[in-house]
Amino acid sequence: MSSWGNNIKISIFGESHGNGIGVVIDGLPSGERLNLDEIYLQMSRRAPGNDKAATPRLEKDMPEMLSGMLNDTTTGAPLCAVIKNTNIRSQDYGNMLKHPRPSHADYTGYVRYNGFNDIRGGGHFSGRLTAPLVFAGAVCRQILEKKGIKIAAHISSIGNIEDEMFNGTDISDELMERLSKATFGLIDQSCEYKMRSLIEECRMSQDSIGGTIECAVVGMPVGAGSPMFNGIENVISSIIFGIPAVKGIEFGSGFEGTKLRGSQNNDEFYYDSGVVRTRTNNHGGILGGISSGMPIIFRTAIKPTPSISMKQRTVDLDSKTNSEIEIQGRHDPCIVVRAVPVIESATAVAIINILSEVHKL
Amino acid sequence: MSSWGNNIKISIFGESHGNGIGVVIDGLPSGERLNLDEIYLQMSRRAPGNDKAATPRLEKDMPEMLSGMLNDTTTGAPLCAVIKNTNIRSQDYGNMLKHPRPSHADYTGYVRYNGFNDIRGGGHFSGRLTAPLVFAGAVCRQILEKKGIKIAAHISSIGNIEDEMFNGTDISDELMERLSKATFGLIDQSCEYKMRSLIEECRMSQDSIGGTIECAVVGMPVGAGSPMFNGIENVISSIIFGIPAVKGIEFGSGFEGTKLRGSQNNDEFYYDSGVVRTRTNNHGGILGGISSGMPIIFRTAIKPTPSISMKQRTVDLDSKTNSEIEIQGRHDPCIVVRAVPVIESATAVAIINILSEVHKL
Amino acid sequence: MSSWGNNIKISIFGESHGNGIGVVIDGLPSGERLNLDEIYLQMSRRAPGNDKAATPRLEKDMPEMLSGMLNDTTTGAPLCAVIKNTNIRSQDYGNMLKHPRPSHADYTGYVRYNGFNDIRGGGHFSGRLTAPLVFAGAVCRQILEKKGIKIAAHISSIGNIEDEMFNGTDISDELMERLSKATFGLIDQSCEYKMRSLIEECRMSQDSIGGTIECAVVGMPVGAGSPMFNGIENVISSIIFGIPAVKGIEFGSGFEGTKLRGSQNNDEFYYDSGVVRTRTNNHGGILGGISSGMPIIFRTAIKPTPSISMKQRTVDLDSKTNSEIEIQGRHDPCIVVRAVPVIESATAVAIINILSEVHKL
Amino acid sequence: MSSWGNNIKISIFGESHGNGIGVVIDGLPSGERLNLDEIYLQMSRRAPGNDKAATPRLEKDMPEMLSGMLNDTTTGAPLCAVIKNTNIRSQDYGNMLKHPRPSHADYTGYVRYNGFNDIRGGGHFSGRLTAPLVFAGAVCRQILEKKGIKIAAHISSIGNIEDEMFNGTDISDELMERLSKATFGLIDQSCEYKMRSLIEECRMSQDSIGGTIECAVVGMPVGAGSPMFNGIENVISSIIFGIPAVKGIEFGSGFEGTKLRGSQNNDEFYYDSGVVRTRTNNHGGILGGISSGMPIIFRTAIKPTPSISMKQRTVDLDSKTNSEIEIQGRHDPCIVVRAVPVIESATAVAIINILSEVHKL
Repeated sequence: MSSWGNNIKISIFGESHGNGIGVVIDGLPSGERLNLDEIYLQMSRRAPGNDKAATPRLEKDMPEMLSGMLNDTTTGAPLCAVIKNTNIRSQDYGNMLKHPRPSHADYTGYVRYNGFNDIRGGGHFSGRLTAPLVFAGAVCRQILEKKGIKIAAHISSIGNIEDEMFNGTDISDELMERLSKATFGLIDQSCEYKMRSLIEECRMSQDSIGGTIECAVVGMPVGAGSPMFNGIENVISSIIFGIPAVKGIEFGSGFEGTKLRGSQNNDEFYYDSGVVRTRTNNHGGILGGISSGMPIIFRTAIKPTPSISMKQRTVDLDSKTNSEIEIQGRHDPCIVVRAVPVIESATAVAIINILSEVHKL
Repeated sequence: MSSWGNNIKISIFGESHGNGIGVVIDGLPSGERLNLDEIYLQMSRRAPGNDKAATPRLEKDMPEMLSGMLNDTTTGAPLCAVIKNTNIRSQDYGNMLKHPRPSHADYTGYVRYNGFNDIRGGGHFSGRLTAPLVFAGAVCRQILEKKGIKIAAHISSIGNIEDEMFNGTDISDELMERLSKATFGLIDQSCEYKMRSLIEECRMSQDSIGGTIECAVVGMPVGAGSPMFNGIENVISSIIFGIPAVKGIEFGSGFEGTKLRGSQNNDEFYYDSGVVRTRTNNHGGILGGISSGMPIIFRTAIKPTPSISMKQRTVDLDSKTNSEIEIQGRHDPCIVVRAVPVIESATAVAIINILSEVHKL
Repeated sequence: MSSWGNNIKISIFGESHGNGIGVVIDGLPSGERLNLDEIYLQMSRRAPGNDKAATPRLEKDMPEMLSGMLNDTTTGAPLCAVIKNTNIRSQDYGNMLKHPRPSHADYTGYVRYNGFNDIRGGGHFSGRLTAPLVFAGAVCRQILEKKGIKIAAHISSIGNIEDEMFNGTDISDELMERLSKATFGLIDQSCEYKMRSLIEECRMSQDSIGGTIECAVVGMPVGAGSPMFNGIENVISSIIFGIPAVKGIEFGSGFEGTKLRGSQNNDEFYYDSGVVRTRTNNHGGILGGISSGMPIIFRTAIKPTPSISMKQRTVDLDSKTNSEIEIQGRHDPCIVVRAVPVIESATAVAIINILSEVHKL
Repeated sequence: MSSWGNNIKISIFGESHGNGIGVVIDGLPSGERLNLDEIYLQMSRRAPGNDKAATPRLEKDMPEMLSGMLNDTTTGAPLCAVIKNTNIRSQDYGNMLKHPRPSHADYTGYVRYNGFNDIRGGGHFSGRLTAPLVFAGAVCRQILEKKGIKIAAHISSIGNIEDEMFNGTDISDELMERLSKATFGLIDQSCEYKMRSLIEECRMSQDSIGGTIECAVVGMPVGAGSPMFNGIENVISSIIFGIPAVKGIEFGSGFEGTKLRGSQNNDEFYYDSGVVRTRTNNHGGILGGISSGMPIIFRTAIKPTPSISMKQRTVDLDSKTNSEIEIQGRHDPCIVVRAVPVIESATAVAIINILSEVHKL
């Protein structure tokens, strides 16, 4: 299913080389004035070609709003945005059905859909389908911002090169603001050169590289979320894994925290000007699935782009024999950069759903 | 919400020191003969007191089936199992409301429920609520086993001590069988002594320690799951984070994979006796959200038990001042051991839902 | 599925002659003090043997609350109530599998569950499963009453004998109060004798009779509900048809309204002390799926009890030949009387869900 | 919410006078070849101007498929169809916000959306939103037809003029075929003249008239559906009430059946060439929420069009005083005719969801 959400539902549609892609957002509150330029800004952060580390393809991913908006203000009816497909080079993908690309969804999609899925450009599995997700997130984050909730992410690592991590107890508005608009978002901007060099090295060697993205949500009210299966971790992870190439997620101290003693990992409470806070934030702002009021912090693992130009071994599904493939076309050697606004967007959709869960009638 | 699932839904209820806890499983197929001894075996793996590394409390967590089963066979009606609460020592928790325990849900639950939640023993946030989850998983895994699908997990690490990891392309039935019944499940059993020593060391120092659990699903048919938001990663993570203390999840090569080149992380396809397989399994058996037929493999991060006996700083919610707490009662210094069957059980509930998604009418 | 609801979910379990029946209510607000006597009163209205028109069997349907309530106040955790089964006369139903009772679910349940369903007493299809629904409704209506929302229903007809109908623009609190506690609820109580006579006549002739129930919701705020598929009509009907024997539902002027001209059926607006009201209420308090502030009014059709003592033709599923059946046991000749509190209860669960739908974050 | 469905979900969007309307259908099986002409035929049955009894406005409601279809065959990805809006006469509706039209959703929508909803042409409440529902139904019915399931409806009454009703035990393929393509569908075509005369009479008197639609589903396999809240009645009614102007639904003998004795209303079983059937079909093909294999039959009540030209009393929301309204524009005096394919379409979407519910893994 390409639908997600309970009180505010998104339904994403489209295939990479079909007529169009888009999203329906159902359940939005009415009367929310939207800044369209901010929406386009978010979409351009994800769009290819806006950063030299990313793919050189050009896209015009400008959405047309078909419904749900009047005078730039939400009507409360489902909001549908459509992006028509352009700049399609289908011939690049001519041999996919026969030769599934390693670590792509070609083979699993082929079996799942009995060979009827649109394989051109990855079809519905394409990273291009994250464009409508960014649109939906851009709408939701504007509504959240009016409530003082900010979302921003950065490239926490490319390969072995690590950015500085968020200070979980003290994240400035300036940092959040800067990152939420950046195209190569880093806390310590001095790593940019090393990271770009690594990416270029991978491109030159017809290879690719993975990385991680760290995301923060600041301004979350205390007491949002629910125990067990509607906890904030459950909700965020259930949408984040909808982004292609995400293979892991950890909240707060996450996997590193498992190596600590309780006395090291526990976050002690204290009063700060009448407000309960924690001295450290290993819990990532979430206890028992519910927000503590501290920043929500999580990291996601983005696998290296599976589309690499060098020759790889695969199978020939027609002859049922082993074979080889050389993937044509131009591909990002590192999708982490463009995935940053996608992670933020999915988080915005998650957070607005968490807040819309009713505590009192 | 403490309900989960689409076609096969579980609804878990209860508070640690209330009258009873349990689960309703709705949507089970009819005519499935269940081995009750196997169910009790799974529940005893999770029950405290069955392994010396775990808590010394005694529980009798034997469930009573109220409905949905006749002659040990599912009727197709909702199956409800109830576990009456016994051995309750409520006085141990008398000061929780006033002094929230660090890194517990005391404070967030207090705000979420306006102070009306049952705080005794952690109430609905208690790890005890995983007992009905294990019951539900024990039912589901029996149904899955008849279809050749096996689920097993092991303690992949306690603190810095690591077990061997699953070989993602070759997991023997014997290993799966042994782990699925173990109370201190390890691939390399020679680590047991070191792990137990570390746990005892933490207990002696009034501290606790975290760890990781690696889980495998073997025998999964190719082509199960869906793109985007109903992918196998989404579904598994959305239930796994319902287990208290889980703070991270990674599939296949996960976070380590982000440091690899595409050429290293990609899993090449080949034909093995007419079946498509991959030479490596960095994708964890899932591509585009859909099963590849290779074992599904994921690791979860379990934080150190937040209940530690040593004095900790916290707040006094009554006087709104900083304060201290010494948590009384007996607590597991490491819940990783008992969490192993819980992870397996949640996975079983996830997998049966994934398989029940309809591909064809 | 025997689960229903979005923000406040009920999950009903049990079979007529199994160990127990009950319900889990997930998502209730915390801090709601419940009057248990009021709950028992509602359950006794539905229980057999409390009215001479109904079945002479005796039941003790008193529920035990296992969770979700502390000091008679909701904790916010799932509330589970269990009713143990007693007074079971299974031998009455010995030949059901072989000979499906006409217009019962015996045959369809047999096919649906491949013969594994518990057929004793109708199993999960039994009207007895409405007891936990009344429990859930009794909880929800208390919460609604604190918000000024009252729900009451009456026997609008038995066979051809009709009670007076609600005056849709003017329903007194006294009437609502009286009906919501009645065991043979009528607006015009003078019809009681005729209705009872008809029921007795049917009992004497080993036959049964149907009827209709009209239900009103007073005090509903304007603007609740949603267009299209989450409209109030959709939500109410989707739970009401979960009550056995309901075969129809109509809102406002319903089927009779189809014979009217628009000029007769339209409800004109006017200001009454600054509040917008309608001069008539043919719309049943719902326009475009959304509440108008006028009383919500609907009628349901309850078919004649299919369990009649006279000989009926049916099939023999073993020999695959035509056969006959004489249904043993004591059965209500008219279930309309006891269905009144069930209709009210299902409505309460529907209304609390409609109100919990979020309009603003 | 304008989304509906569990395994096969539809998400409808659009406002009457916005940029476009449409639907996303998520979860369709792949590989289903669709006959586009059949889809257009169904849409033209609903479109205004194709029958002289209906509105004289001209629409071009031809949908553009953006995704989910390749070579006229479903890919398994979400299928999105968009209809661009044309022929808009917004000025006709200029005074709606101030003067809510009686028995329209103007007032309730105004309150629900705080005045931000698009009121032009009824906005999201417009009957025009049934066009994408017919599209979705046209897709689903083609898939159902390949499984031998046929859906057809007829105008069972206009005002007091009644068509013949379906013979619930014997509905010919010819009748189903004829009705499923008709623009003024009747079993007894001799009523057409009287019905048309009545409609014209209403038009001439600036008034309108309601009616009922009876729908049949033939070829349904035995044992589909579920007890309690996922019964066939629940599922069908929960989508049918999403159609504007529907105010009632009854299955089988429905409201009339409540006046019968059990001995009259019960449907006796018999073997017919080895197949279990019932001698009568008062149960409307559904027992305990589950299909019996007999035709599913239900009737819906369609209220008289609330848009009538004669002067009506209403309120002035600005001045908060009583006022009057004369509705401009051209309106159907009877929407029953065009609602027939809409009822069939909603039923098709319901039935495909019921069938996709999993009985066995």
